[in-house]
Amino acid sequence: MTSSSLDIVAIGDAIVDVIATTDDAFIERHRLPRGGMQLLSAQQADELYAAMGPAREISGGSAANSMAGAAALGLDVAFVGQVAADQLGDIFAHDMRSLGVAFETPALVPPPPTGRCLILVTPDAQRTMNTCPGASHELTPGVLDLDLIRSSSVIFLEGYLWGPERPRAAMLEAANVAHSAGRTVAFTLSESLCIGDRREGVLGMIEQGIVDILFGNEDEVRQLTGCEALPQCVASLSGKASTLVITRGPQGALAVESDYLVEVPAMPVAQVVDTTGAGDLFAAGFLAARCRGRPLKACLETGSIAAAEVISHFGARPEADLRELTGL
Amino acid sequence: MTSSSLDIVAIGDAIVDVIATTDDAFIERHRLPRGGMQLLSAQQADELYAAMGPAREISGGSAANSMAGAAALGLDVAFVGQVAADQLGDIFAHDMRSLGVAFETPALVPPPPTGRCLILVTPDAQRTMNTCPGASHELTPGVLDLDLIRSSSVIFLEGYLWGPERPRAAMLEAANVAHSAGRTVAFTLSESLCIGDRREGVLGMIEQGIVDILFGNEDEVRQLTGCEALPQCVASLSGKASTLVITRGPQGALAVESDYLVEVPAMPVAQVVDTTGAGDLFAAGFLAARCRGRPLKACLETGSIAAAEVISHFGARPEADLRELTGL
Repeated sequence: MTSSSLDIVAIGDAIVDVIATTDDAFIERHRLPRGGMQLLSAQQADELYAAMGPAREISGGSAANSMAGAAALGLDVAFVGQVAADQLGDIFAHDMRSLGVAFETPALVPPPPTGRCLILVTPDAQRTMNTCPGASHELTPGVLDLDLIRSSSVIFLEGYLWGPERPRAAMLEAANVAHSAGRTVAFTLSESLCIGDRREGVLGMIEQGIVDILFGNEDEVRQLTGCEALPQCVASLSGKASTLVITRGPQGALAVESDYLVEVPAMPVAQVVDTTGAGDLFAAGFLAARCRGRPLKACLETGSIAAAEVISHFGARPEADLRELTGL
Repeated sequence: MTSSSLDIVAIGDAIVDVIATTDDAFIERHRLPRGGMQLLSAQQADELYAAMGPAREISGGSAANSMAGAAALGLDVAFVGQVAADQLGDIFAHDMRSLGVAFETPALVPPPPTGRCLILVTPDAQRTMNTCPGASHELTPGVLDLDLIRSSSVIFLEGYLWGPERPRAAMLEAANVAHSAGRTVAFTLSESLCIGDRREGVLGMIEQGIVDILFGNEDEVRQLTGCEALPQCVASLSGKASTLVITRGPQGALAVESDYLVEVPAMPVAQVVDTTGAGDLFAAGFLAARCRGRPLKACLETGSIAAAEVISHFGARPEADLRELTGL
């Protein structure tokens, strides 16, 4: 193993979030997947946007949020994701680079435009995501800097981007290159990939032993494994990924390495405003602590602190000083 | 006077705010007009944007914010302002229309793009605004619906848009048409128009008796009148505009009609986060109460409540239920 030049390189959706508050009746009337994510066509997105209230725009994307958090925690990170050469693409790129995240993926000439996610936040702070992926799903293996991937400690892959063929091919290539170079491959599940054909592909990659750190929430690992009880899910996965990290919302989080299981409670939050990005920032905190050589329990605790910060305000990017909060 | 179809039609900048927190050193290093507003060229805006931190985008524009507030207070309002046919223009139009504000000004083919205001918020919650007006300054008298203006109770004009020639001509035409139709002409001062040639033009319009309600903060009325002491400013202006409304930040606000002067204290705010839009929402509350036939003191109080709400969070558009807060 040669010395690594970056702590983490992530591949994921390059998306700007369009965040509005709403009531439960709106979610029901528009048959939105409460608490979940659905993909929308451009026309469907325009229709939903026309129906929803005034919004604020904040850069998002699951792995991109994690890299924003990791950079805020002092790590050297890069992000690979596809934007278009338009105003939302400029906003996404600015927000990444201004945090110190290396972001060099060339913008595509639209159409399609930069992806956006229409996020409706209900009074219980739950977010319902409606993604129009746009350029984000146009990512191709050709944009990968394989030397960068080989020389980074961790490659972090986003489950949401596992659906479309070319981005999946890019992530698989990156995972294989990193694995062969002895690097750590981290993968974060997403609800939408844990069903049907996609599930087989993800399970296949995990069973091949390519995934070193697997992140997921309770629902995701249930859907992925087909097991109902959490101990069964853990038993089903823990022999395959070296490190299994499961977030449980207000019930905290747990991690399993071989026979060693650690649990931490959720950090208390004065007021939960918007749960968007909780899992993304948990992964950021966990990976940042891991890259700094902290023990497993400290990794979970750092993840919990970062997640608690991001759910205390609108938007899935940290606003407070995460280094001060975590002591990292 | 015929019956009016709308409560207020406003003309102003159509701008998306790009809001980032920063420290005082950044303001000094980039020689920004702390607490004020400066106009930037596209290149200057790109340079400042590249230097500033991650941001959130929320629709803005002074009179547009006031109409967002007035609509949230239950009034029937319209907004006239120029966006380009681009993503930020779509965002601006969506945010207006989703609040119920009629917004029919056709978008221009860019360039220039939709205007944006780079807002830096320092730890004391003070905002420093750096506006790249883009399409906003391309507004022409030709887009005015004069019948709509003639049939609306109030025409509300934004001082920031007084600088460029064509928008000024549009506002002057609207003011004259409304005045001739016996409608109420309201004008809100802005720091940037109270100097040099522009000052003469504004004073001229006020002295002609076209402005019925004049809004300004202490600094603005000082600069406009050239008087130092507030009583002198009031004396200098109160004979000219039927209603003079002066906001004084944490010192509250006052209004003068003929010999009658009313003062109200500022509403207490648990935590002032971002003072952007305080004056805009004050005007919204004042005009909404006025259109509902409330007495002068109640108009000031409604303005104070709306201003207090908007400075308690980032962005210059209301987030809480203003009707519930004000009882209007």
